[in-house]
Amino acid sequence: MKKNMIIAQSGGPSSAINASIAGAIARGMASTKVDNVLGAVNGMQGFLDRKIINISEQIRTSEDIETLIHTPAHALGSSRYKIKAGDEETYKKIVEILKDYSIKYFFFNGGNDSMDTVHKLSEYLKRTGEDIVAVGIPKTIDNDLELTDHTPGFGSAARYVGTSVAELYLDTCVYPVPACTIVEIMGRNAGWLTAAAALARDSGVPAPHLIYLPETVFDPEKFISDVKAVMAKDDQIVIAVSEGLRFKDGVYVAETGAAEDMFGHKTLGGVANALEDLVKKHLSDDFPKIKTRAIQFSTLQRAAAHCASLTDLEESYQCGYRAVEAAVNGRSGVMVTLARVSDEPYLIRYDVGELDQIANKEKVVPDSWITKNGTDVGDKMMTYLRPLVRREASEKMVDGLPRFFQFDHGRMVRPGDVG
Amino acid sequence: MKKNMIIAQSGGPSSAINASIAGAIARGMASTKVDNVLGAVNGMQGFLDRKIINISEQIRTSEDIETLIHTPAHALGSSRYKIKAGDEETYKKIVEILKDYSIKYFFFNGGNDSMDTVHKLSEYLKRTGEDIVAVGIPKTIDNDLELTDHTPGFGSAARYVGTSVAELYLDTCVYPVPACTIVEIMGRNAGWLTAAAALARDSGVPAPHLIYLPETVFDPEKFISDVKAVMAKDDQIVIAVSEGLRFKDGVYVAETGAAEDMFGHKTLGGVANALEDLVKKHLSDDFPKIKTRAIQFSTLQRAAAHCASLTDLEESYQCGYRAVEAAVNGRSGVMVTLARVSDEPYLIRYDVGELDQIANKEKVVPDSWITKNGTDVGDKMMTYLRPLVRREASEKMVDGLPRFFQFDHGRMVRPGDVG
Repeated sequence: MKKNMIIAQSGGPSSAINASIAGAIARGMASTKVDNVLGAVNGMQGFLDRKIINISEQIRTSEDIETLIHTPAHALGSSRYKIKAGDEETYKKIVEILKDYSIKYFFFNGGNDSMDTVHKLSEYLKRTGEDIVAVGIPKTIDNDLELTDHTPGFGSAARYVGTSVAELYLDTCVYPVPACTIVEIMGRNAGWLTAAAALARDSGVPAPHLIYLPETVFDPEKFISDVKAVMAKDDQIVIAVSEGLRFKDGVYVAETGAAEDMFGHKTLGGVANALEDLVKKHLSDDFPKIKTRAIQFSTLQRAAAHCASLTDLEESYQCGYRAVEAAVNGRSGVMVTLARVSDEPYLIRYDVGELDQIANKEKVVPDSWITKNGTDVGDKMMTYLRPLVRREASEKMVDGLPRFFQFDHGRMVRPGDVG
Repeated sequence: MKKNMIIAQSGGPSSAINASIAGAIARGMASTKVDNVLGAVNGMQGFLDRKIINISEQIRTSEDIETLIHTPAHALGSSRYKIKAGDEETYKKIVEILKDYSIKYFFFNGGNDSMDTVHKLSEYLKRTGEDIVAVGIPKTIDNDLELTDHTPGFGSAARYVGTSVAELYLDTCVYPVPACTIVEIMGRNAGWLTAAAALARDSGVPAPHLIYLPETVFDPEKFISDVKAVMAKDDQIVIAVSEGLRFKDGVYVAETGAAEDMFGHKTLGGVANALEDLVKKHLSDDFPKIKTRAIQFSTLQRAAAHCASLTDLEESYQCGYRAVEAAVNGRSGVMVTLARVSDEPYLIRYDVGELDQIANKEKVVPDSWITKNGTDVGDKMMTYLRPLVRREASEKMVDGLPRFFQFDHGRMVRPGDVG
């Protein structure tokens, strides 16, 4: 009887998520306790549809693994499939498929929702006495998972955000006119990635001049006076804002209606456009020639593997690698975590955490890491962020363009092929 | 009597424009015919306001020059000041300032408009018998200058566009649903940079699936049928579109009104949003679950020094370097040009071209380089583009973040300091 492992990826993309499966694949292919390393195409949804490929057959060279590490987005595809509470039928079906394919080790690579799925599945497996383990591999650019110092994917996105804000500041300053550039950064409830805009200052620029995290309630009148106060001193500024910024009543600033109700005009989409409208409307008396620009980092911030952090890629790899080690040693219902031992030298200890303490929870930026005025982050945040972006990944480029590893999603295996 | 040179920068930013002034500074500082290398802060506007700094005093180490090469946007600041035809007063004032500061060599680093200014100034100088020369240093990410194979700044922006489109394609494909990502690329009248999206295919991805250049008239009905035809074969696609796309009547697609008149709905800003609306409206019957996304590369495409092309930076440097050589050898009213000798090996010959053949002209993409259906570029374009992006620039990073060279714009010199 074979002992196979399977990996599925879930949730939103990042430029480090494939480094994690590369680590899991490398450890699985090296293990005497694992026969075949399988992959589910498009996460849990694909798994339930038996869209399963044999990774062991598709990874042929060391270069394949190396290229996979530097390939952004889910090489196995993703899904946002969420199993409903008490949906025993689905767990039964999952176990049926696991058994069909002789799978002893199940790995799920994703964020909060995904960890909830692994948690529930591991509970079900224990309750029903199945000899199958389920282990989580963390991933999210939002950096909002509990029990771990930070999450794979965050450092690379943070490096992209810090670098781009620094570059955009220079672009903002070129003309001799007052200028306000507003950059919109991902993170619906947690402001970690928006806070990473502050790294731009390590490039020797004053930007970002203002930072708005979702942890702080947005007050449009305070915003206008914040901007006026900053522009009185320096009239070419960059503002970093989280897509998840909300008014006191919990309504997203990005929601057209809200901005329309409050200021009687229509915003053009994201929160950056809403703030740009406010600046145009309320600053043009003081700065008649003001030039404004709203920039959404959009999916660039999670896809820009060409700007990845080497520390992030190495840690992501290790999270996958160690997930397999934990599983073959019998652990289940856990996620690999990173514990920070010290900031300088930057030292990390890998560990595992119980999924019931991680699933469905969100770690937000602590109040004490945000400055009193609510428009900046303090030293604790900078000390936290810096080691995560310090080293550059050198991506494989051929003729100046990136090379990617792409699995053949169409080469499905049947249970008999790997049983 | 001193012989000084002055450099001014103009027009829109690029991540290679400072490499050109670095080259001019290096050659100027090395020349026995040049006493001081001066810089005008904020282009012609700043020059006329006598905002002049002494670069020779501010560049102190080889590292300063090296860092300047990799710093995006105008290190001297820019302006969009345009001298009106027949405005003799202004030329008189320019000459007065040039004489005050003992300037024999005037360099202007910019695009079409800037070359027009240098042209007119050099004509004025000749006509009035002044012993002062004026030479142009090309720069534009639009790549639309005549007489030169390509322009400094274009290769780096092209590398950013190609790389980002490749990365965004992988992001577009992660979920098992039909998806259409539309990326909006700069270039008001010339489609060179939008065409560079095709470089993504050298990364082994099928994106971009459709390319819309401003050289081709936009027909919304044809667009919808183009998208339907492509999505029938591959339902996860990326479309590259130029910001300058126009309807048959010459109206920009980005202009809200036009799209509103034609389809009875409001677009959200740029051309990518307008096309996204069209896709949502007309493809959702065939693809009910279609996920669409409009992404504007915005100023990122011209500021992303971290993704620059080494070939571009080296050529930009040489254009500045050789402009000084041409000037000290008595040339005036010319711009440094690049002539391509061969594609493979990629060989370039530097030359100078008369500004009257460059000023106010725009080089657009030849019809024969666009495919018959108007939605792609052909082999000639690929052969042309590839050598320009082939080599990666390795930017100076400290702790994972870029370091910039920033002139002290406040340290003005008076004529007596350099006379």
